[in-house]
Amino acid sequence: MQNKRKIINDPVFGFINIPNDFIYNVIQHRYFQRLNRIKQLGLSSFAYPGAQHTRLLHSLGAMYLMSEALKQLQQHGNEITDKEFDAALSAILLHDVGHGPFSHALENTLVSGVSHEEISLLLMQKMNDEFDGKLDLTIKIFRNEYHKKFLHQLVSGQLDVDRLDYLRRDSFFTGVTEGIIGSARIIKMLNVKDDNLVVEEKGIYSIENFLFARRFMYWQVYYHKTSVAAECMLIKILKRAKYLTSGGRKILAPPALRYFLENTIDKKSFLSDNSALEHFVSLDDSDILSTVKVWASSEDKVLSELCKHFVNRQLFRSDITQEPASIEKKRQLITQYKQHFGITDEEAEYFFFEECISANTYNCEDEKILILYRDGTLHDITEASDILNVKLLKNAVSKYYLCYLRL
Amino acid sequence: MQNKRKIINDPVFGFINIPNDFIYNVIQHRYFQRLNRIKQLGLSSFAYPGAQHTRLLHSLGAMYLMSEALKQLQQHGNEITDKEFDAALSAILLHDVGHGPFSHALENTLVSGVSHEEISLLLMQKMNDEFDGKLDLTIKIFRNEYHKKFLHQLVSGQLDVDRLDYLRRDSFFTGVTEGIIGSARIIKMLNVKDDNLVVEEKGIYSIENFLFARRFMYWQVYYHKTSVAAECMLIKILKRAKYLTSGGRKILAPPALRYFLENTIDKKSFLSDNSALEHFVSLDDSDILSTVKVWASSEDKVLSELCKHFVNRQLFRSDITQEPASIEKKRQLITQYKQHFGITDEEAEYFFFEECISANTYNCEDEKILILYRDGTLHDITEASDILNVKLLKNAVSKYYLCYLRL
Amino acid sequence: MQNKRKIINDPVFGFINIPNDFIYNVIQHRYFQRLNRIKQLGLSSFAYPGAQHTRLLHSLGAMYLMSEALKQLQQHGNEITDKEFDAALSAILLHDVGHGPFSHALENTLVSGVSHEEISLLLMQKMNDEFDGKLDLTIKIFRNEYHKKFLHQLVSGQLDVDRLDYLRRDSFFTGVTEGIIGSARIIKMLNVKDDNLVVEEKGIYSIENFLFARRFMYWQVYYHKTSVAAECMLIKILKRAKYLTSGGRKILAPPALRYFLENTIDKKSFLSDNSALEHFVSLDDSDILSTVKVWASSEDKVLSELCKHFVNRQLFRSDITQEPASIEKKRQLITQYKQHFGITDEEAEYFFFEECISANTYNCEDEKILILYRDGTLHDITEASDILNVKLLKNAVSKYYLCYLRL
Amino acid sequence: MQNKRKIINDPVFGFINIPNDFIYNVIQHRYFQRLNRIKQLGLSSFAYPGAQHTRLLHSLGAMYLMSEALKQLQQHGNEITDKEFDAALSAILLHDVGHGPFSHALENTLVSGVSHEEISLLLMQKMNDEFDGKLDLTIKIFRNEYHKKFLHQLVSGQLDVDRLDYLRRDSFFTGVTEGIIGSARIIKMLNVKDDNLVVEEKGIYSIENFLFARRFMYWQVYYHKTSVAAECMLIKILKRAKYLTSGGRKILAPPALRYFLENTIDKKSFLSDNSALEHFVSLDDSDILSTVKVWASSEDKVLSELCKHFVNRQLFRSDITQEPASIEKKRQLITQYKQHFGITDEEAEYFFFEECISANTYNCEDEKILILYRDGTLHDITEASDILNVKLLKNAVSKYYLCYLRL
Repeated sequence: MQNKRKIINDPVFGFINIPNDFIYNVIQHRYFQRLNRIKQLGLSSFAYPGAQHTRLLHSLGAMYLMSEALKQLQQHGNEITDKEFDAALSAILLHDVGHGPFSHALENTLVSGVSHEEISLLLMQKMNDEFDGKLDLTIKIFRNEYHKKFLHQLVSGQLDVDRLDYLRRDSFFTGVTEGIIGSARIIKMLNVKDDNLVVEEKGIYSIENFLFARRFMYWQVYYHKTSVAAECMLIKILKRAKYLTSGGRKILAPPALRYFLENTIDKKSFLSDNSALEHFVSLDDSDILSTVKVWASSEDKVLSELCKHFVNRQLFRSDITQEPASIEKKRQLITQYKQHFGITDEEAEYFFFEECISANTYNCEDEKILILYRDGTLHDITEASDILNVKLLKNAVSKYYLCYLRL
Repeated sequence: MQNKRKIINDPVFGFINIPNDFIYNVIQHRYFQRLNRIKQLGLSSFAYPGAQHTRLLHSLGAMYLMSEALKQLQQHGNEITDKEFDAALSAILLHDVGHGPFSHALENTLVSGVSHEEISLLLMQKMNDEFDGKLDLTIKIFRNEYHKKFLHQLVSGQLDVDRLDYLRRDSFFTGVTEGIIGSARIIKMLNVKDDNLVVEEKGIYSIENFLFARRFMYWQVYYHKTSVAAECMLIKILKRAKYLTSGGRKILAPPALRYFLENTIDKKSFLSDNSALEHFVSLDDSDILSTVKVWASSEDKVLSELCKHFVNRQLFRSDITQEPASIEKKRQLITQYKQHFGITDEEAEYFFFEECISANTYNCEDEKILILYRDGTLHDITEASDILNVKLLKNAVSKYYLCYLRL
Repeated sequence: MQNKRKIINDPVFGFINIPNDFIYNVIQHRYFQRLNRIKQLGLSSFAYPGAQHTRLLHSLGAMYLMSEALKQLQQHGNEITDKEFDAALSAILLHDVGHGPFSHALENTLVSGVSHEEISLLLMQKMNDEFDGKLDLTIKIFRNEYHKKFLHQLVSGQLDVDRLDYLRRDSFFTGVTEGIIGSARIIKMLNVKDDNLVVEEKGIYSIENFLFARRFMYWQVYYHKTSVAAECMLIKILKRAKYLTSGGRKILAPPALRYFLENTIDKKSFLSDNSALEHFVSLDDSDILSTVKVWASSEDKVLSELCKHFVNRQLFRSDITQEPASIEKKRQLITQYKQHFGITDEEAEYFFFEECISANTYNCEDEKILILYRDGTLHDITEASDILNVKLLKNAVSKYYLCYLRL
Repeated sequence: MQNKRKIINDPVFGFINIPNDFIYNVIQHRYFQRLNRIKQLGLSSFAYPGAQHTRLLHSLGAMYLMSEALKQLQQHGNEITDKEFDAALSAILLHDVGHGPFSHALENTLVSGVSHEEISLLLMQKMNDEFDGKLDLTIKIFRNEYHKKFLHQLVSGQLDVDRLDYLRRDSFFTGVTEGIIGSARIIKMLNVKDDNLVVEEKGIYSIENFLFARRFMYWQVYYHKTSVAAECMLIKILKRAKYLTSGGRKILAPPALRYFLENTIDKKSFLSDNSALEHFVSLDDSDILSTVKVWASSEDKVLSELCKHFVNRQLFRSDITQEPASIEKKRQLITQYKQHFGITDEEAEYFFFEECISANTYNCEDEKILILYRDGTLHDITEASDILNVKLLKNAVSKYYLCYLRL
C-alpha cells in the first residue's frame, strides 16, 4: 500500500521520510505511538514552557540522522546492506521505547532495579514475535552483538545519533540556542575504521563543540534547579502514595498506575510476569498528571499538600552548593514542617529532598570518540584536542541540590 | 520581592520579560498555570507531532506582542497610561483562560451552550475578587466597554495579537513555514485613529500576507484531515461515555471529568453553581487522555473499540468533498459496522461523523481591518488591496468532511 | 581526484554537495566564478543592507533544489537518466551566467537589445566547446528543445527552481520573512504528466502561498522605492558617462567598462565580435562601484554631482503614484535643477527619472501552473484555486515611480 | 524631521531602530556609509560564499546590542544618562570606521605602522569637527578616558558588543551554526561593579560557551585555509604592485589606490597630511577587486600570474602544520616556480607565503572577564569556571600555514 510512504513534518529537520513499509509498521506500533504521550524532557517544561516535545518526535529525528549518517558512511565506501540499514533505523527508533513517564522519578519509586534500556529490549523482543523475527538484526545491533560495531555505536555511544538529535531538539524547543550543535557537519566527518565509528581529523573542533554544548545543556536545562525541584516533588508524591497504598489505604488512580502502587515491581517481575510489561506500556504522562490533581484532595495531609503545591506550580526551592547541606539545616527544616503542618518527623521528610548531581562531559572509561588522522592513526579526542583537559573531563563535577518547600 | 521580575525563554520570541509584580501574580495564578496542561492545537499533534505547545506559552507570547504593540502606539504619539498598559497585558494573558481541554470536542459534548470566552470572563471575575478589584480595567477592556476601543481590538479583533502570536507559533511548532507572518512588521505599522486600531498605508502588503497565511494555516493545519478525524473520534467517545453514564452505568474517570459526565452542564449551571466552575478548572488534557486509555477496556463495545483505535492511532479516515456525503454512503457504513461489531443502528452511528467546515479569511461583518492613508482617510482592507477580492473573501469556502472507521 | 566532491556551506539550505567532477568543473569555470562578484539583488542593499548575496550562491542553491526536485520526480516513478540529471543541474547552474553587474541598469545603457538569457546561451556554447560537447544536452534543455519538457520547466517556468530559490534566499538575506515559501513542500508535490511539470492537488495551498509571497517580494523588496531610486541614479550616471565619451571626452574607467562606454554594443556585436563577450565577462559590480567613486571628481558637473550623491547615499527621492507625474511637476524639477546647478535643460533631465513598473503575479499567457487532480485531470491553478481571481491576476498592477534629486 | 527615525531590516536581529537624529546623522555620514562597501570577512567568501555581509551591517548590529546592554544595565539600577547612551551607541557605530578594504592584507602592504583603531580615532575626530563637538564624549569613551569604564569595555573588551555581534553574524552568514552564541542571555547577565563590566554568577556557562564559540570560529572560519590562502595571494599581489610602482613602472589603478602604491604611507603621513586620510576613505573593496582584474593583463609575469589565479579562484594551496616548513621545502618551491615561469629567485618568492597564526581564546593579560558572585566578590572567569584550564588558555595555540601556488 503506497500510503505507507508517509512524510512527517519536523520543525527541527523539515520533512522526514518514512522509507518503507517495515519502518512504517514499527512507527505505527502501539508501543512506539505511546511515546507521543511521554515528554522528552519530563518536568523541564516547568522551567522551559516550550519544552513539550515528546519522545516520539525525538526518536523520529534520531532516525532521520541515522539515515543521513549511514548514507554518509556508504559514500565513504563502507558497505551497509539494505537489511543493515533498516535494522539500524529500527534500532534507533526503538532505543527509547522502554521509557516510562517521567522516567527518573518513576525508576526511583514505582519500579526498582530495572533500567529503561532493559525494558526497551523486552519490548523489542515482544515486537519481534509479532513481526515474525524481522527485528532479529535490530536487536543484535541494539545489544552490540553484531560484528559491525559502528552500527551499535551510532545507536548508543559517545557520539550516537540519539545525542545528536536530542541536543539539537532540546535546544530548539527550550529556546536555549547555546545547545545548537553542527550535527550535519559532524555527520559529514564520520567514517568507519576496523568496524568502529571514527571522526575524521578536521572534525576535531566540531567534536569539542559537541562536548561543550552537551555540558552546557546539562547544567542549563537538564539539571536546571526548577526541573530538579519539580522532579524531587514528584518522587516524594509517588513515594507517599506508595507508602499509603502499602499500608492498605485505598487510593484513587487509573488501573495501570494502581498496579505499580500496589505491587513491588522489579526486574524479576518484568521477566516472569507479562502483566508488569502490559501495565507498563499503558502508563504515560497523562496518568501521573491527572492523578496528582486528584490526590490534591486526599485526606492524607502530606500527599495533598505536596500535590496541591505541584499542581499550582508552587515548587520546591532549590539551593545549589558544592558541599552537602548541614545536618542542622535539615533538622531546621523538619522542625519547621512539623510545626506548620502538625505532622511527624518521618512525614516532615517528605517536604525536602537532597540530591547530588554529577555530570561528566566525556567518560573515558566508556566508549571513546576516536579521531582518524590523515596518516591513518587513531587518537582519542582527549589526546587530539588541544583544549580538552583530560583530567578535568574525567573528574565529574558534582553539585548538591537541596530542594525544599518554602513556607 | 525582586524575584518576580522573571524572564521566560520562548523559542519563538526569545526572552519574554515579566514587567512587574501584578503581571507576575496573574501568571502565577492557578487558573493561568492550568493552561500549561492544555495544548494549543489539541489533537493536531496526531498530524504534526511537534505541535505540543500549550495555551500558556501562547498566552505569554501574545502578551509579549501586546507589549511591543503598545510601545509602538506610544511612539506614534498615542497616550497609554501605565494602568492601561497593564490592563491590556493582563487581558491578553487571560483571554484564553476559559479554554477546556480539546475545547471544540468538549463544547460539543460535556458542556453545552457556553463558549470559552464566557468562561474566561467568569474566571477573570473570580480572580478580580481575589485581586481586590485590580482586574476591573482588564475586564472592561476584555468586554469592549472601555472608550479606548483599540485596546479591546488588540485583544480580540481582525488583527489582534492573539492571531499574530498563534499563526507564528503554530507555524513554528508544526514546521509549516508558510504560516510565518511578519508580526514585527505589522506591529510597526499599527496606529490609532478615533480610538480605533488602524494600519498605515504601507502595511497593506503585510496585511494581505497575514490574511493569506491565516487561510493557509486553516486548511493545512487547523482543519487537517487527521486532526479533524481525531477530534471526531473524541467527540464520539465522550458522547458514548455520557450516554452510558446517563443510563446509570458506572464509568471510571477522575472526579472532575465524572462531574461533567454525570451532570448536564450549561450556561446556567456555571452562573448558579460554583462547583461547575471549580470542576471545570481542574480538568485538563491529561484527564481525557488518561481516561480514554482506561475506557479502552470498557465492557461497552462501542466505547472500547473507539478508545482502542484512538489510543493506538488507528484514526478515522477522512474524505473531503465539496458536497455532503450521500445517504447511501452513510447507510453502507452503518451496515458494515453492524455486521462487523454485531451492534445496533444507533450504535453504528458512533463510528462515523460528518462535518461541514467553512473558513472565511476575512469577515467583513465582523471587525474590519482599517487602512490609514497618507491623506488621513480610512479604507477597509478589501478596498485598499488590489488583490483581495471582496466577494470571494465574504463567501466562506465550505468543505464536507466524512470521517469514518476503516475496517 | 576525490577533491572535487566538495561540500559548500549554504546558510539557507545547509550543506550543498557537489555530486561529481562534471558539475565541479562547471562550478570552477571562470564564467561561473565571476557570478561571485555580482550581487543577486543589485542595488537593493541600499534598502536592505543584508542583501549582499551573490548570483553564484543563488545558482548553487537553485542547483540544490533542482537535485531535490529530480529525486522527488524519480521517486514518483518518472525516469530521469544520470545524463539528464547532470544536464538539468548544469542548466540551472548556468541559467544566470549571462548576467552583468546591476543588469537592469546595464541593459538600458551600456548594452542594448540583448537579454541576459541570450548572453547566458552564448557563454554556455563557448563553455561547451571547452568541454568537448559535454554541455550539448544542457543547452538543449535550456533552449527547451528537449522532449522531456519538464526539465526545461524546472529551469525556467512559472514554478522553476530559480524562483523557488530566489524567493527563499532573498527573504533570508533581506530579513523580510514574508517571502519565505515552503519550497520543500512544493517539491514534494511535483510530478510529471505528459512530459509536463504538474503539481498534485493537495499542493494547491502551497502554490497560492508561493504566488502571494512572490507578489509580496516584488513590491516590498524588488521594487522598493530606495532600490528603484538607486537604480535610476545609476542609469543616469552611465548614460551621462556614455554621452560624454561619445563626445570624445576621455573618461577614467577600467578597460572592460571603457570598452562598453566607447562602443555601441548590441546583439550583433556579441554574435560577430568575440571581444564583446570577453569584455563582458570581465565586468562585474566592482568596476561600476569603483568607477563611480572616481567620477565623483569629474569635471562634468552632471556626472560628478550624480556620482557624489550616489556614493554618499544621498539617493533620489521616489514618489509612487497610480498616475504618471504631470508635465508641470517635471517642468518644475527642471527649472529647479537649472537654477541650482547652472546647467541646461537637457542636463537637468539627468536629475530625475520616471518609470512605470508593473508586476503581475501570474502570467496566464506564459507557462501555466498545472494542478493534477486525483482523477487524473489537469487544471490551471487559476481554476483550481478558490481564492485566486483570474481577472485580477491577469491585469498587472502598474505603479509610477518618479525619482528625483532632493535639493 | 520625523524621517530620521528609520528602521533597518536586519536578518540577524530583526528590526533595528535608529533612535534619534544624532545617531541618524552618524549613520548617514559618508565615512560610515563607506563601510557598506567593505566586507566584514574580507576574502572569506572564497570559503563561505554566503559571507558577503559588510562592516556597515555589523556596526549597526553592534549598536543594537549596545542599546540592549545599556537598557539592561539601567534596569539593574546603574545610572546611564541620555548623553552617555548616545555616546556609547555612536562609539560602537564608529569603532570600525577606520577599516580599509581587506584590512589585514592592506596593513601589510599599502599602509604601515598604523592600526585601524588609530584611523578610526582620526576619522572620529574629523567628524567631531563637522558635528561641532557632539562626539566629544564618544571619543572619550572610545579612548577609555571616561570614568565609567564599563562603557569603554562594552565597545572594546573581552566581552564587548563588537564580539557579541560578529560571532552571531558571521555564524549566520557563513552557515556555521556552531558559532551561534546566546548574546541575549549574556546581555541579561551583565552588570556593573566599581565602574567595571561584570557578569553575574549564573552566567558562567554562557561565558564558557562564548569563549569556545569564538575559538571555533577562529579556526573554522577566520583562519580557514582557503581564506588564508586568498589573503596571502592578495598580499603578494599588492607587494608586487608596490614594488613595480616604486621602480617607476606606470600601473593602472583608480587614483586612491594609486596614491598608496606610489607613496610610502605610515602613521606620520596620516597625522601630518590630510590627503592620506582623504584617499584612505575613498578606498574600498571594489577598487582592489576591480584593479586585480586589470592587473591580470599586466606585462609583469609575476603580477599577471598572481592576479589571473586570484580572479579565477585558482587559489594557493595551504598546508597547515605544527612546525614551520623546512628550508628544503621552500627551496624546492622556488626552484619549481623559477623553472616554470622563467623568473628569478626573488620573483619566485611571490608564489608562496608562510604564516604563523596563533589564536588564544582568552588573554588574561588583557581585560578580564569578571564574574560577580552572589556574595559580592569578583572572580576571573578562569577561576570561576570548572572547565576552563588557565594554562591551556594562556598558551595560545600556533599553527603554521604554508600557502603556495599549485602548478
